[in-house]
Amino acid sequence: MHAISSAPNISSHRLGELLERLAHFGRTANDGLNRVAASREDGAARDFLCHWLRHQGCRVCVDGVGNIYGIFEIASPGAPVVLTGSHLDSQPGGGRFDGVYGVAAGCEALASIRELARTHSQPISYNVGVVSWTNEEGARFAPSCLGSGVYAGRYTPEFALSRADGDGVTLGNALADIGYLGEDAPPRAVAAYIEAHIEQGPVLEREQRVIGVVEGNWGTTKYIADITGAASHTGPTPMADRRDALLAAARLILACRAMADASQEQLLTSVGRLDIRPNSTNVVAGHVRLYAEFRALDQPTLDASCRHFEQEAAIAAESANVTVELDRVTDRRAGKFDPELCQLIEQVAADRHYPAMRLNTIAGHDAISMRDVCPSAMIFVPSAGGISHNEAEYTEPQHLEAGATVLTRVLWSLLTRRHPA
Amino acid sequence: MHAISSAPNISSHRLGELLERLAHFGRTANDGLNRVAASREDGAARDFLCHWLRHQGCRVCVDGVGNIYGIFEIASPGAPVVLTGSHLDSQPGGGRFDGVYGVAAGCEALASIRELARTHSQPISYNVGVVSWTNEEGARFAPSCLGSGVYAGRYTPEFALSRADGDGVTLGNALADIGYLGEDAPPRAVAAYIEAHIEQGPVLEREQRVIGVVEGNWGTTKYIADITGAASHTGPTPMADRRDALLAAARLILACRAMADASQEQLLTSVGRLDIRPNSTNVVAGHVRLYAEFRALDQPTLDASCRHFEQEAAIAAESANVTVELDRVTDRRAGKFDPELCQLIEQVAADRHYPAMRLNTIAGHDAISMRDVCPSAMIFVPSAGGISHNEAEYTEPQHLEAGATVLTRVLWSLLTRRHPA
Repeated sequence: MHAISSAPNISSHRLGELLERLAHFGRTANDGLNRVAASREDGAARDFLCHWLRHQGCRVCVDGVGNIYGIFEIASPGAPVVLTGSHLDSQPGGGRFDGVYGVAAGCEALASIRELARTHSQPISYNVGVVSWTNEEGARFAPSCLGSGVYAGRYTPEFALSRADGDGVTLGNALADIGYLGEDAPPRAVAAYIEAHIEQGPVLEREQRVIGVVEGNWGTTKYIADITGAASHTGPTPMADRRDALLAAARLILACRAMADASQEQLLTSVGRLDIRPNSTNVVAGHVRLYAEFRALDQPTLDASCRHFEQEAAIAAESANVTVELDRVTDRRAGKFDPELCQLIEQVAADRHYPAMRLNTIAGHDAISMRDVCPSAMIFVPSAGGISHNEAEYTEPQHLEAGATVLTRVLWSLLTRRHPA
Repeated sequence: MHAISSAPNISSHRLGELLERLAHFGRTANDGLNRVAASREDGAARDFLCHWLRHQGCRVCVDGVGNIYGIFEIASPGAPVVLTGSHLDSQPGGGRFDGVYGVAAGCEALASIRELARTHSQPISYNVGVVSWTNEEGARFAPSCLGSGVYAGRYTPEFALSRADGDGVTLGNALADIGYLGEDAPPRAVAAYIEAHIEQGPVLEREQRVIGVVEGNWGTTKYIADITGAASHTGPTPMADRRDALLAAARLILACRAMADASQEQLLTSVGRLDIRPNSTNVVAGHVRLYAEFRALDQPTLDASCRHFEQEAAIAAESANVTVELDRVTDRRAGKFDPELCQLIEQVAADRHYPAMRLNTIAGHDAISMRDVCPSAMIFVPSAGGISHNEAEYTEPQHLEAGATVLTRVLWSLLTRRHPA
């Protein structure tokens, strides 16, 4: 590993301003964000980002699923890229930091590196780039991490563009509407990917650490359960004749929770969404689409919980006289990030005297897709109260600055490494 | 009671045509109806009805909450009215008969009576009218039976007009948009109200009867439960820290079902609708609005079940670390229709050799509102398979004809009674 001989200094003012500007697009009354993927608000945030990147001298590419890459050719036009970034899309009632922070910190890193490079004589082996991935949240289009998943070869572009939202609008049409159905080839020679992100959980705050070195991820399996009963009048239909899809859904929600409660914190489960038809007060629900999630650090625990859930679905179907069809839409196996990059992040944090710790991400991130392509790692900063996917999401300014500083110095260290080839 | 000395004959062809025409507005791909109150489709159906009534020589009034009255002044302009009718609004995925049948049968009765009156010398004491009540279903605007409830003095017009749908559109604005925020005074001197309706349950079919003489109604209590937790990420948020509004909702759904199952068919319960926020796959639901219904023929059973539900709500709140606020939005007490009118319906059915039986309505109907105003009764016809609030709702043509025949002859009997005054 190359030693850090000099390093760029970030501007916390510029970082704060970037975050403030990016929080403008889709801001809610409670100072959160409603900026789901490929919405008009997402389009406006993308416009701002592209403009900013060009202003920094970057070459901006938009690929066939709307991923935006700003490449600063600090080494040479053909050199491999050290990439950083995250996503601009939010949950419908999300916060101002989830995803946005990684993009803004990446931009700040790029600007600082650009400034230092003007006066710096050390040879630079790689170009540096900032990426904003399409539809990380999976809130409007399922599955999540769709843009990075296409980049990493998990999904075909055709699959991604055909995903439809609740109104039947496809990602392809939504991207075309906001002008982000691109035609550029994405950068392919990527030497490393580093993503800064808020933790979205309570661990760093509880342990009074500022930097989280993310060494791996919990496995996650997501199911869509299509529950089909029969719509009928909630009055005159005898209870014994009812085929109540919502009743089966309720049984499954409780079964999922019971599985987590029995696991002694080894398994996390959730049902966060139901699409109910017709969803009218006095109609027995004829159809419910239920979205269930299971997460475990230990893959066998996750696999066992999936088998258990499939049994519970059969029991719920029988008890409510409905049918349940399961579609296993996401299967993200537990895995590790690049150990050398983790060490480098730890070393940079120690140099700057930031209290750091290793942890595993429970949430999914684009860096997990990127791990299939190149050495990848993540830097976490604390989330106040562990709150995320909520308008009240918050990270202290000094923690935002610490994360961006570590990111910038890690990138600089990678850029100034001798090229392996 | 006045004997039936002569009687109008209905045209089953005209009745079928009326039903066919009325099924056109808001027809779904599966031959059902999506014609919620004060929608564009409801407006088109109302236009058709008003046109038809005027063509029959009726005076048409639209009152301040959009109820439509077509009065045929067969006796004299000032005479009291014998009123029949039902509603044109449907559930979002409803059938072609619920409500519509009562309006169409009323129109057919009016036309037949008009024809007979031309040649008939017997003195006629009352005018005859057909009414279509606004928002009986309660699907778009809660509560149900809103138009008849205002007529009967249960609700003020201001309350009714201020009810908002899921998009925040008020009934007042929606009626104005379709041109049915009327200014006419509704007819006040109503001598009797008879409503024909499909049963929406399996009893008549099972018992092989064609005419149901509705002698009373089950009591119904409806609650809206506002469940407030906290939105958070379904991944990194520890299970113990979650305040999952959907988990509490699931517990309440199962508690309601368990209450019905324990009652030995004395109590019917249902949760047909949940409004979930943000309803995103990987966000713990921060808020759920749950709509629960309880129905019993015996009022003390209903009252006890309501107390039980309120306890269950407190238990669900505590178990999921959320708050539950209950709003008791409908309280329709069990009660009886007019015994003399029930006898008259029975007698007319017997004269025509239609197999008939007495029963109680479990569903709510406008006739229950009207009972507070004048002697009221209902005539049920069979629902195939007991299916209603479903696009597959169906009633055999000969049953539709039987119901309309009984309705027409009951109305005729009332019109030709000697005026009590």
